[in-house]
Amino acid sequence: MFSPIKNTKVYEQVIEQIKNMIIDGTLKKGDKLPSERDLVEHLQVSRTSIREALRALQIIGLVECRQGEGNYIRESFENSLFEPLSMMFMLQKSSSLEIMEIRKIIEVETTALASQRITDEELDHMKMLLDTIKSSADEGDKVKADKAFHYGIAKASRNYLIINILNAISSLMDEFIKDARRRILVEEENKDELAKQHDDIYKGLKSRNPKKASEAMKRHLDFTNEYYKDF
Amino acid sequence: MFSPIKNTKVYEQVIEQIKNMIIDGTLKKGDKLPSERDLVEHLQVSRTSIREALRALQIIGLVECRQGEGNYIRESFENSLFEPLSMMFMLQKSSSLEIMEIRKIIEVETTALASQRITDEELDHMKMLLDTIKSSADEGDKVKADKAFHYGIAKASRNYLIINILNAISSLMDEFIKDARRRILVEEENKDELAKQHDDIYKGLKSRNPKKASEAMKRHLDFTNEYYKDF
Repeated sequence: MFSPIKNTKVYEQVIEQIKNMIIDGTLKKGDKLPSERDLVEHLQVSRTSIREALRALQIIGLVECRQGEGNYIRESFENSLFEPLSMMFMLQKSSSLEIMEIRKIIEVETTALASQRITDEELDHMKMLLDTIKSSADEGDKVKADKAFHYGIAKASRNYLIINILNAISSLMDEFIKDARRRILVEEENKDELAKQHDDIYKGLKSRNPKKASEAMKRHLDFTNEYYKDF
Repeated sequence: MFSPIKNTKVYEQVIEQIKNMIIDGTLKKGDKLPSERDLVEHLQVSRTSIREALRALQIIGLVECRQGEGNYIRESFENSLFEPLSMMFMLQKSSSLEIMEIRKIIEVETTALASQRITDEELDHMKMLLDTIKSSADEGDKVKADKAFHYGIAKASRNYLIINILNAISSLMDEFIKDARRRILVEEENKDELAKQHDDIYKGLKSRNPKKASEAMKRHLDFTNEYYKDF
């Protein structure tokens, strides 16, 4: 039996080795990892340490265990590691100001990229989401469509780093969008204003005009920002 | 002994419970987790499952084990989870174009924020880094100073979300900066051009002028981008 501190070091070394194989390109997406037995032999550590390391890599979403087949480097990383990242941001109690700033930084320019890369199908989907935001009777559905509108723009940017980063902060973003709508819609006339802002973004995307699209997003986020001024 | 799939589910449930306690605010930064024995009792699962869950939370950097004291939610998350995130980005083989785009998106606006929040001490440090970039005889040292200059700007933004996001992609950023310098400095006269661009960013920061600082950063990144046009 390991003493805790020694144990920590051993499984960390195993992870370090696997990490190095990823960095130097020996292990690629979808590759099968050596068997537990081979790892025990090569790395000269206990099977327990190997299992702990593999379990941890599974949890962070880097490795998946296929029943009866062994462990593989995952092909896709959507919704894997990103939840714990959101947890950390929550623990850090990122302020509304920080979220507002990062949204403005990322979303304005992402909208410019999206306007040059969005497909017709995606535009149709955006239009549908705007109809839901406008006409649904249920605020829950509206919130969902509002979020999907913003993530849809990120997706249309075709930049997977951007998409992953927004995924990584999605719990914060979602909470923020819900809260922002609540604050903004206290004033009845803001319903039309919000709808107009979303429409302007959509029109910028549809006309494939990066400047028009990103400026509309900037106006939308600046407007939202006004409702967080005192915080 | 658990069969693998059942085991997976059990430790995931343990993590889920801890996650929920974070989301609802029961667990905060620096809090002590219940003892292994208490967790076994409350969650009605085996000690092995509890240990696996705790080990995994330690590896993603959310929990730290203090020798003889028990497990705690970490106070600081620097350099914790973020390495695996970099690993994923590496496995995804993010293209230079994607990195270039995200750098332009994040760094230009971050420089604007930094110019309004940077301290005199930080400015002095930036000046020192620029001297190293200009005068060091060793390209390795220059690369290190160049990276530190860019991260220093992020730090001066005082937005921890931005800092963490840049940390999360730091392996990619570091590789990119090293490679970009190699490409740019093939042309001898670019040495002075690079130095001038960095100086302009520094001057923008020093004069606390967000527009001047961010435009200088934009010119610097647009210039770098030229060396990736054919990729």
